[in-house]
Amino acid sequence: MIKTIKHMALSAALSFPLTASAQHQDSLFIRKMYDQALTNGKSYEQLRYLTGRIGARLSGSPQAAAAVEWARQEMEQMGLDRVYLQEVMVPHWVRGDKEHAAIVNSSISPSREVNVLALGGSVATPANGLTAEVVEVKSLDELKKLGKRKVQGKIVFFNRGFDQTHIHTNRAYGGAVDQRASGPSEAARLGAVGVVVRSMASNTDDFPHTGGLRYAEDAPKIPAVAISTKGADLLSNLLREDAKLQFHMRLNPQWLPDVLSYNVIGELKGSEKPEEIIVVGGHLDSWDIGEGAHDDGTGCVQSMEVLRLLKAMGYKPKRTIRAVMFMNEENGLRGGTKYAQVAKQQGERHIAAIESDNGGFTPRGFGITAPNEPVFQKLFSWKQLLAPYGLHDIERGGGGADIGPLKDDRVALIGFRPDTQRYFDIHHTANDTFDKVNKRELELGGASMAALVYLLDKYGL
Amino acid sequence: MIKTIKHMALSAALSFPLTASAQHQDSLFIRKMYDQALTNGKSYEQLRYLTGRIGARLSGSPQAAAAVEWARQEMEQMGLDRVYLQEVMVPHWVRGDKEHAAIVNSSISPSREVNVLALGGSVATPANGLTAEVVEVKSLDELKKLGKRKVQGKIVFFNRGFDQTHIHTNRAYGGAVDQRASGPSEAARLGAVGVVVRSMASNTDDFPHTGGLRYAEDAPKIPAVAISTKGADLLSNLLREDAKLQFHMRLNPQWLPDVLSYNVIGELKGSEKPEEIIVVGGHLDSWDIGEGAHDDGTGCVQSMEVLRLLKAMGYKPKRTIRAVMFMNEENGLRGGTKYAQVAKQQGERHIAAIESDNGGFTPRGFGITAPNEPVFQKLFSWKQLLAPYGLHDIERGGGGADIGPLKDDRVALIGFRPDTQRYFDIHHTANDTFDKVNKRELELGGASMAALVYLLDKYGL
Repeated sequence: MIKTIKHMALSAALSFPLTASAQHQDSLFIRKMYDQALTNGKSYEQLRYLTGRIGARLSGSPQAAAAVEWARQEMEQMGLDRVYLQEVMVPHWVRGDKEHAAIVNSSISPSREVNVLALGGSVATPANGLTAEVVEVKSLDELKKLGKRKVQGKIVFFNRGFDQTHIHTNRAYGGAVDQRASGPSEAARLGAVGVVVRSMASNTDDFPHTGGLRYAEDAPKIPAVAISTKGADLLSNLLREDAKLQFHMRLNPQWLPDVLSYNVIGELKGSEKPEEIIVVGGHLDSWDIGEGAHDDGTGCVQSMEVLRLLKAMGYKPKRTIRAVMFMNEENGLRGGTKYAQVAKQQGERHIAAIESDNGGFTPRGFGITAPNEPVFQKLFSWKQLLAPYGLHDIERGGGGADIGPLKDDRVALIGFRPDTQRYFDIHHTANDTFDKVNKRELELGGASMAALVYLLDKYGL
Repeated sequence: MIKTIKHMALSAALSFPLTASAQHQDSLFIRKMYDQALTNGKSYEQLRYLTGRIGARLSGSPQAAAAVEWARQEMEQMGLDRVYLQEVMVPHWVRGDKEHAAIVNSSISPSREVNVLALGGSVATPANGLTAEVVEVKSLDELKKLGKRKVQGKIVFFNRGFDQTHIHTNRAYGGAVDQRASGPSEAARLGAVGVVVRSMASNTDDFPHTGGLRYAEDAPKIPAVAISTKGADLLSNLLREDAKLQFHMRLNPQWLPDVLSYNVIGELKGSEKPEEIIVVGGHLDSWDIGEGAHDDGTGCVQSMEVLRLLKAMGYKPKRTIRAVMFMNEENGLRGGTKYAQVAKQQGERHIAAIESDNGGFTPRGFGITAPNEPVFQKLFSWKQLLAPYGLHDIERGGGGADIGPLKDDRVALIGFRPDTQRYFDIHHTANDTFDKVNKRELELGGASMAALVYLLDKYGL
């Protein structure tokens, strides 16, 4: 809160570097791009295809391959200067078909099935499953304090929910996700046999939320599942009555050999400074449930829409502008890593990278990790051109997982910030489907990113 | 756009009247109210009951009576200083059970049923329906230019859609709604026998949107329906091929005698200036389809939540604060009119009235119709306390239908402004149901209104 007020004061203090005439011209140009997006936007119908005809597309899956080919064809049809695939080997984890969990052997309740999803990357249970007593904790610290004696042979149940007092739900997610990422290995170090994690969710319902775990190399790998928020509440309530109840879980996921896949890249070549590159991107892979609509089909179609809008306006960029559909954000980040490696090898100079990976909701602003203060101030000075479209949150901090590896002392990393209220209701669930996306919200997002790309291209950084 | 930039400049130029210490205190108080709303908010569960157990509640219906009793009981349980009903006679229109429409006698298509809803207040067709050729127009002006010769005996089809280039969809609604409100009588003056209006919608689907029409006293009353946007596109396309096709519509709505109903009012009495009244309200009635969730169940439960939050904080208001659930906003405005009449008769002094009747989506700000410039500036100076919660749009203009009749030279009329992108997808349709409401968005709205009421109460106007 204090941070925001400080930015408002900064805004007032700044003298804007743009002349009145340039401002007027930019304002008109941006207005026309929004008009184009709102009346003739293509991203909603593109998303309908990606989510409905291809669907969930975890790295290594046939659907991920279909998504690559789809993105390539879509960009080929746009008449860009160049469309190409960038090879990247991706991990290949498959969920299996035996996911099942239940609360059993409770003295006060009959057996109750509960909705779970294996965490992405989890190892399997024994074929007949795993049954053990449960120890509930709210944090990694609380777990460590329990020590081996109380954890050995048990299933650890991480049950810290979202802190709902955050106005932006991504902060609540950030405050809870260590349980999912590090919980399994921390529990394993103390002799636990399995892990159940409360879904990383802003609401209460029956949908479990999957997501990646990170096994430490020096700890045993134990199976781990996310339980729905309602399931977590039930388990916690029953445990309070009967600490000896048991949890049963059965999973048969598998790690298969790595698969050749691709980042898909479309490019408009710069006319004056082609060596300066501006990237706008999202990730093409998704978890293997739902349709990967908000995560991150929306980021992909918005990124393509940026190039389409600039072309539709007849705009000839000075700098090179790329839309990048990254592969494997969800369980490896191999695509983002590869893109940055190649850029470095080829001595490419990226001036800015914008990532859309927070859902396709109403645009609220951009979060900026600038290489230095003048670059931040320059970006911030454009706020007056963006605020009429509801882009008030032009703030420090942000970027994205896929563009993160590009970080150096020259590039501005920028995260597109849509409204966050609904995102973590559906994130990583079977509920992340096309019908949750609103056409106008989606198209406004593409236009917002295009507006920023236009300013980045015209004025540089 | 220009207006917004002007306001930003004003913001920078203002020296804020609050001392740093008062600001800090207010900032903490407001933060705690948001915490309370986000962790312990009651409005979502209240809305679940109103929409799910009572449902659609057009004025004069048994459900409207149930909603009155529900609101009274809810506020009684809150331990307010006073809860009372204010009598108001309301119109009683019922839709009937014979709604049907089809495109018939086309030389290029078999008969096609289309989805329509009688406009609220429409008269019936003859018992067997009405079949006539169709004349399509985009505006009242275009209709007038056609003149009697081309309109006589026909059904007029108003087919001007939303202007999607508006960033706020309420402006697009405002730009289209004359067709629905005045179209039937304008068509009747030229001898038309019926009216079909393209739904006032921001999206394209099969749901027709009803809404009130206003019959002029000096024109024949002809039946009028809203057609879904997909139906409108179909009809327009078929007309282009065959201008002689006919439209068939059958309706049997009825006007019944007026019914005694009520505004429901809950009050916290002011401790220092009880004679100065601050109102926060929504409307209890809804159209007779769907569940009246976003229109305007959300405004009702948010208004009650304002009082609950202030009480939960242990706050003792200086001024009198009222939550008013107005009756009959949708087809008569009798409740809003009556409330203002009684206030005037009793010499009550309202300093501000806030209305929530634009849906329960993420809060974006408030629209203000101030009695004079210093009052606007005072309200605007509070923006720094509200912006951390996403309330950036503190702008001139706005209010609401129900509080409109309170307008005098002293009262500030304030419309709560949530995000508008999704509202007109569902407004006045069978699709306006509880599942479209997000808990956090709803509770943030109540807290936002509570924050403004707190400042109004503490500092006056």
